[in-house]
Amino acid sequence: MYIGIDLGGTNIAVGLVSEDGKIIRQASTPTLNEREAIEIVKDMAMLIEKLAKEEGIAVSDIKGVGIGSPGSIDFDNGIVVYTNNLKMDMFPIADELNKLTGLRVAVDNDANCAAMGEYVEYEDKVKDFIFVTLGTGVGGGVILDKKMLHGFNGAGGEVGHIVIEMNGEQCTCGRKGCWEAYASVTALIRDTKRAMEKNPTSLMHEFAKKEGAVTGRTSFDAAKAGDKAAQEVVNQYAIYVAEGITNLVNIFQPEMICIGGGISREGEYLVGPVREYVNKNDYNKHMKKTEIVSAKLFNDAGIIGAAMVAR
Amino acid sequence: MYIGIDLGGTNIAVGLVSEDGKIIRQASTPTLNEREAIEIVKDMAMLIEKLAKEEGIAVSDIKGVGIGSPGSIDFDNGIVVYTNNLKMDMFPIADELNKLTGLRVAVDNDANCAAMGEYVEYEDKVKDFIFVTLGTGVGGGVILDKKMLHGFNGAGGEVGHIVIEMNGEQCTCGRKGCWEAYASVTALIRDTKRAMEKNPTSLMHEFAKKEGAVTGRTSFDAAKAGDKAAQEVVNQYAIYVAEGITNLVNIFQPEMICIGGGISREGEYLVGPVREYVNKNDYNKHMKKTEIVSAKLFNDAGIIGAAMVAR
Repeated sequence: MYIGIDLGGTNIAVGLVSEDGKIIRQASTPTLNEREAIEIVKDMAMLIEKLAKEEGIAVSDIKGVGIGSPGSIDFDNGIVVYTNNLKMDMFPIADELNKLTGLRVAVDNDANCAAMGEYVEYEDKVKDFIFVTLGTGVGGGVILDKKMLHGFNGAGGEVGHIVIEMNGEQCTCGRKGCWEAYASVTALIRDTKRAMEKNPTSLMHEFAKKEGAVTGRTSFDAAKAGDKAAQEVVNQYAIYVAEGITNLVNIFQPEMICIGGGISREGEYLVGPVREYVNKNDYNKHMKKTEIVSAKLFNDAGIIGAAMVAR
Repeated sequence: MYIGIDLGGTNIAVGLVSEDGKIIRQASTPTLNEREAIEIVKDMAMLIEKLAKEEGIAVSDIKGVGIGSPGSIDFDNGIVVYTNNLKMDMFPIADELNKLTGLRVAVDNDANCAAMGEYVEYEDKVKDFIFVTLGTGVGGGVILDKKMLHGFNGAGGEVGHIVIEMNGEQCTCGRKGCWEAYASVTALIRDTKRAMEKNPTSLMHEFAKKEGAVTGRTSFDAAKAGDKAAQEVVNQYAIYVAEGITNLVNIFQPEMICIGGGISREGEYLVGPVREYVNKNDYNKHMKKTEIVSAKLFNDAGIIGAAMVAR
């Protein structure tokens, strides 16, 4: 058994995970991100002990711990180099948790861990797998020959930060026109609001009112109810997603690309048009095509994937 | 010693190459691309025998043969799957040359071979290396952990076919706005011609007349002579190149990116501004930066790299 830890800005979620990537039991506690990093590590150790006790095993029976952390990670040395949300700059999180538990600890970026989590189901037959998460931003993890792509400095795999429109929409990274600025849910909400302004009678207004805000679902719900303006937003969003996926296919030609993040719960309603667009537009006209699927684990992917990083 | 073969639409260039990637001697013959594929292979075998004889060794002393071929290659099985210029669809070129020579034969895409060639100099200290060739198109090769990225179907590494401008300039691959449609020399010539139309007094007209045609050098030569319109073309071209390089850095974070193709003979005049732009705009603000260099081998890279593929 392994421990997978999904370290978020809000919660620390810890799971006891089987060899084949199933969560056996889990527990969580608030991150309280303003406090010192070492206090967060103490809570991790406490939750590991709690889970071991509940399972009736010794902590030393656990084969390893994986932590999925936001920010830039020095994977080789188990260090959080930089993160926006936590007081963890240059923090040797793996060593600190090892001191408290005696366990072997590995750390990776949270998006990479989610990629490892979604990959578990396919690992026996798929060697090259790209996970793309469409959320506040666009993140992801690139698994090549069963190993995570980190780049020489640990900062690789930032698939959301490919410019797909030069001088386009402002991206959080400083560049203009990154894929993230079109295919993130943040971008979808922006485009939904723009379409609502232009279409005061669109059903999107009603759906937004019902939910109390414009969300990533607003345009999808209204589109499904037959609203033309919403359908345009959704169609355009699928193209934005597909342009980036096509880029990834042309670069990597992986066996599989998995689309995750909350919006991927739309399933084939989003992934169907994306798949069609990619298959029509990718560079490969003579070889087998990349399979495009939607994610299945959602929130559990972080814990499971972190455990798999430890494995 | 190895044999490296650069199979082009015009010439078959064959070289005897040392273990450490130096061309010892070479020979070539016209491809005559309309003829049957097997005739081309016979000429390859003939040139191998000729080079061995000149060197005073037996063909069987050669450790292996590498072929760099245009088109889609089934690297694992040594098959040319598809190519525009040669009658080689689904042609088992490795087996055929093996039958004639008794030598072990490997085949890879010509751009991948050029990448391997340029990589030789750095292979002892660099594990992740991307070669980008700016020519008629934009091609390249991605070397990760010292191995060429092929994708699961052999069609990977098409770095020129990342859309950087949705609905932008038409690309030969069918998509609109690929990097190739902005950063290739073909694109540079198109943009030079457009600027010349708008600027009838530009020095570009004189340089083009001197060379007998608008080439990739026209805008660079005029820019160096102080021509404003030409400087704008060159500056914009450097940005186009840099946008794509930045995308590659954000995805791979490789230790080194090498820019090749004829236009890279401009050296720091092109690569300097590109490097500056990439360093300013890439996603990585906290880690070591990717080194950006220009190619050194040019025409020899294909032969040397093909030999290295065999090695």
